[in-house]
Amino acid sequence: MNKTRALDQITWENFSELSTMEKAPCFLKEGRIFHALVAQQFSRSLLEDLCSLATCVRRIAKTRTGSRFLQEQLFDRRAMLYFAQPSSRTYLSFAAACQVVGLDCMDVRDSSTSSEVKGESSEDTVRTFSSYVDLIIMRHPEGGFAERVAWMLSNTSRPVPVINAGSGKDQHPTQALLDIYTLERSFENGGGIDGKTVAFVGDLKRGRTVRSLAWLLTQYEGVKAWFVAPPELQIGEDILQQLDAAGMSYEISFDFEKVIPQADAIYMTRIQDEWDLNNESRAIDTSMYHFKKEHLKMLKETGVIMHPLPRRAEIDTAVDSDPRAVYWRQVRNGMWIRAALILSVFGCDRAVRDYYKEQEQ
Amino acid sequence: MNKTRALDQITWENFSELSTMEKAPCFLKEGRIFHALVAQQFSRSLLEDLCSLATCVRRIAKTRTGSRFLQEQLFDRRAMLYFAQPSSRTYLSFAAACQVVGLDCMDVRDSSTSSEVKGESSEDTVRTFSSYVDLIIMRHPEGGFAERVAWMLSNTSRPVPVINAGSGKDQHPTQALLDIYTLERSFENGGGIDGKTVAFVGDLKRGRTVRSLAWLLTQYEGVKAWFVAPPELQIGEDILQQLDAAGMSYEISFDFEKVIPQADAIYMTRIQDEWDLNNESRAIDTSMYHFKKEHLKMLKETGVIMHPLPRRAEIDTAVDSDPRAVYWRQVRNGMWIRAALILSVFGCDRAVRDYYKEQEQ
Amino acid sequence: MNKTRALDQITWENFSELSTMEKAPCFLKEGRIFHALVAQQFSRSLLEDLCSLATCVRRIAKTRTGSRFLQEQLFDRRAMLYFAQPSSRTYLSFAAACQVVGLDCMDVRDSSTSSEVKGESSEDTVRTFSSYVDLIIMRHPEGGFAERVAWMLSNTSRPVPVINAGSGKDQHPTQALLDIYTLERSFENGGGIDGKTVAFVGDLKRGRTVRSLAWLLTQYEGVKAWFVAPPELQIGEDILQQLDAAGMSYEISFDFEKVIPQADAIYMTRIQDEWDLNNESRAIDTSMYHFKKEHLKMLKETGVIMHPLPRRAEIDTAVDSDPRAVYWRQVRNGMWIRAALILSVFGCDRAVRDYYKEQEQ
Repeated sequence: MNKTRALDQITWENFSELSTMEKAPCFLKEGRIFHALVAQQFSRSLLEDLCSLATCVRRIAKTRTGSRFLQEQLFDRRAMLYFAQPSSRTYLSFAAACQVVGLDCMDVRDSSTSSEVKGESSEDTVRTFSSYVDLIIMRHPEGGFAERVAWMLSNTSRPVPVINAGSGKDQHPTQALLDIYTLERSFENGGGIDGKTVAFVGDLKRGRTVRSLAWLLTQYEGVKAWFVAPPELQIGEDILQQLDAAGMSYEISFDFEKVIPQADAIYMTRIQDEWDLNNESRAIDTSMYHFKKEHLKMLKETGVIMHPLPRRAEIDTAVDSDPRAVYWRQVRNGMWIRAALILSVFGCDRAVRDYYKEQEQ
Repeated sequence: MNKTRALDQITWENFSELSTMEKAPCFLKEGRIFHALVAQQFSRSLLEDLCSLATCVRRIAKTRTGSRFLQEQLFDRRAMLYFAQPSSRTYLSFAAACQVVGLDCMDVRDSSTSSEVKGESSEDTVRTFSSYVDLIIMRHPEGGFAERVAWMLSNTSRPVPVINAGSGKDQHPTQALLDIYTLERSFENGGGIDGKTVAFVGDLKRGRTVRSLAWLLTQYEGVKAWFVAPPELQIGEDILQQLDAAGMSYEISFDFEKVIPQADAIYMTRIQDEWDLNNESRAIDTSMYHFKKEHLKMLKETGVIMHPLPRRAEIDTAVDSDPRAVYWRQVRNGMWIRAALILSVFGCDRAVRDYYKEQEQ
Repeated sequence: MNKTRALDQITWENFSELSTMEKAPCFLKEGRIFHALVAQQFSRSLLEDLCSLATCVRRIAKTRTGSRFLQEQLFDRRAMLYFAQPSSRTYLSFAAACQVVGLDCMDVRDSSTSSEVKGESSEDTVRTFSSYVDLIIMRHPEGGFAERVAWMLSNTSRPVPVINAGSGKDQHPTQALLDIYTLERSFENGGGIDGKTVAFVGDLKRGRTVRSLAWLLTQYEGVKAWFVAPPELQIGEDILQQLDAAGMSYEISFDFEKVIPQADAIYMTRIQDEWDLNNESRAIDTSMYHFKKEHLKMLKETGVIMHPLPRRAEIDTAVDSDPRAVYWRQVRNGMWIRAALILSVFGCDRAVRDYYKEQEQ
């Protein structure tokens, strides 16, 4: 794979022809994450590092002295939260993560206020934004735009790292990270993620979180996936081929209740009808794929119910108070793993780990 | 009143059937304000505590060392400013109050950017927001929504306090607090609020600030209210009944100029024609209820003119430069009393008072 | 010029009749910049002070200790970024500048969220905003509004400085400052701005940056200007008269390629067709006024290409990587010069210079 080079040593033409897997290592710099753009760039060891760092951050933040220490890490840096496509939850999660590590934020949360209206190219807009900051956290409706920006910025005299907070239909890597972190935490006293059974339920065809998480799970040993959805919304062939290639075992199912007792984690998802071309989702009966209160007794005692949120009817609100419903904790995990990611990008991970070790003694 | 219990010890069904007066004590926690939702939860002694705390904050903030001390109080906390109904002035007042006490803010100021558009329930939206923060300051067009959120959050494993920054037509408690604080400051060398005469003028039927302030004034001794408005916009019977029940004396009047010389405070309000069903306000001649420059000579030397703002024509701008026009100071008082409220919610009031006493010596 | 007085010693009627040149000194207070509203208030010595201060700030900010020192300067102050007319780039530049000097920001970036919708006057809106802060940074579509606000605030008991971040068609003084700072930096080893030739290219009729910069250049010795534009978009007579009065030499040209080799700085601008009444710009062929890659070889080795951005087609993106293309550095210079301006307004310039000198030793 000697096609792989740092982004500032490859032309856009050559880079854009690479597959996602081939691109992934280009986003590193001196062995460290520089840009965080695709789920594929996170190897198991990187995932484990990030998860353990997130746990350090979470625990350090419990005291005032610890909070102060964390905020000292990046007080002298600024981040830009550029959300050309609005998303309150992802925006807030990143804003909170930045606050935890002392990083000052500025935001543009509305494409219409940007100078694109004056005929500027999107690249120029982001390059201007990048001039004021040390990190760009970006959500954009156009798939691949974050990669183009990362390449462009890496080829200026002032390269600024880019974190992808969701681009188009395909990538939302920090969502996948928080899912992994939630699984890790859920099974930390149960042998970790290795060997676990994860059931994905709902709209598997169009949910980018499912695609990314399934891919990341291939890095663990002996994980089994169930894909539970109505035929029209089943998981794509391309994903299954990736799982086959990685040797991960999986089953397709249309019978949710049969799967529940076998799963260690149930990953519920919403019908993504915003991608409908012609309201086709309405004709599909998805009620058999809802997690109802009565399902709680079928679920393993050590099982967990996850959801990337927002939810509609796919999980009964009566389920919320069950300790195995971890989707609200998942939200907060997002904040911690994003804080960990930001610290890593700026090379502060070592200092944070050392501080944590000292405090533990 | 043994129906009254902490919010986490009462079902939503039982809670929602309580009157506002019965609900009020549920918003406390261990004798302290936890949620701040309705004017009715502020007893005289709480009001006096908040006012004196606001004064401590205001004076401490005059020096750099004092500012630093205040900012140390809540540096390790985050607040969410969720304004589903935009309001720049209330938003900014809270944002400034947060800054004074070192509380980092994140905001969503536009309902359309929230994920409600993806079919999420309003409760889920706020619960998600709450995951990232330690305090929610919320403005919402729907009356009672703040209470529902407070109940819901109190019944999770991570309860987060809620401050109501205006909900629907009825409650805007921090506006009432700043009005009380302005009256206190105005009469601090004149015997306080007890025994004063307050004239409410303008649209008394639909102004929620008038309703809340009138109610809070019942807690003081010997206060007299005048309600001066055109017949179509006079104060509601329900308020008068409350005042009767509390034994507060009041008079209805249609003659503004007769009332001016008798008032210690004149509380002007704007015609709230945004609540018009059919432009009915336009047919009402309100010009006799405007405070004009020539009215200044009728006003007591110790009298004050207040206004919750924004104003239209109800107060001549030529009045602004008179020292008895305190509506601009009222704005700034809002910032101090909100800072005091936030400090109280987090239990920092004691530390701030102690610091103030030390400095005074 | 004894008409000139501080803003609080002159009536609005008398003030508003003054020319811009006569108004300029009214924005000072005790010999220091208080309001920053028009380019005409910046004398050469003030420009030099600001540029050298910006350089101090830029260099101090390179270390963590230095960043901390800068952030200590204004930690106890708040600024309001009021952008009634959205502009991401100017907004972000100011927000970053505030962060550099530790000034906490609040923003309203959308006229529709302000209470102007409730019938409030624009003056009342800004006066309310000013109550919460120590500085107002304001962009407004209405020419002269910033001046009215500055006069109004100077005549209250709590005067708050106003920085004009763009008002109407005429003034955008901090853009002119950053242009001067970019020229200073570009020629710091080449004798400074004195004696240089600056070519303005593009829409000279409607670009306020050109008007302001041309005026500021009259304060330097022996500067020559070229105005290169299609006849319909040439520089206004009023500017030329100002230059004549100041004794600055200039030439009008329609031949871009002839001018390139003679220029030390080429200031490119965009066609401002948002001011078109009837799409008249479309009929104008401006392609001869574009800077193309092949022009690079005509440009002096020491020459620089500037642009206030956003750009459209006036500069080929292939030009970006040439070291003489300084428009991206210009963006960042804006942040530094704005930080310097803010420090000056608050009288922190001395402390910053002293710190810099100490560190240099």
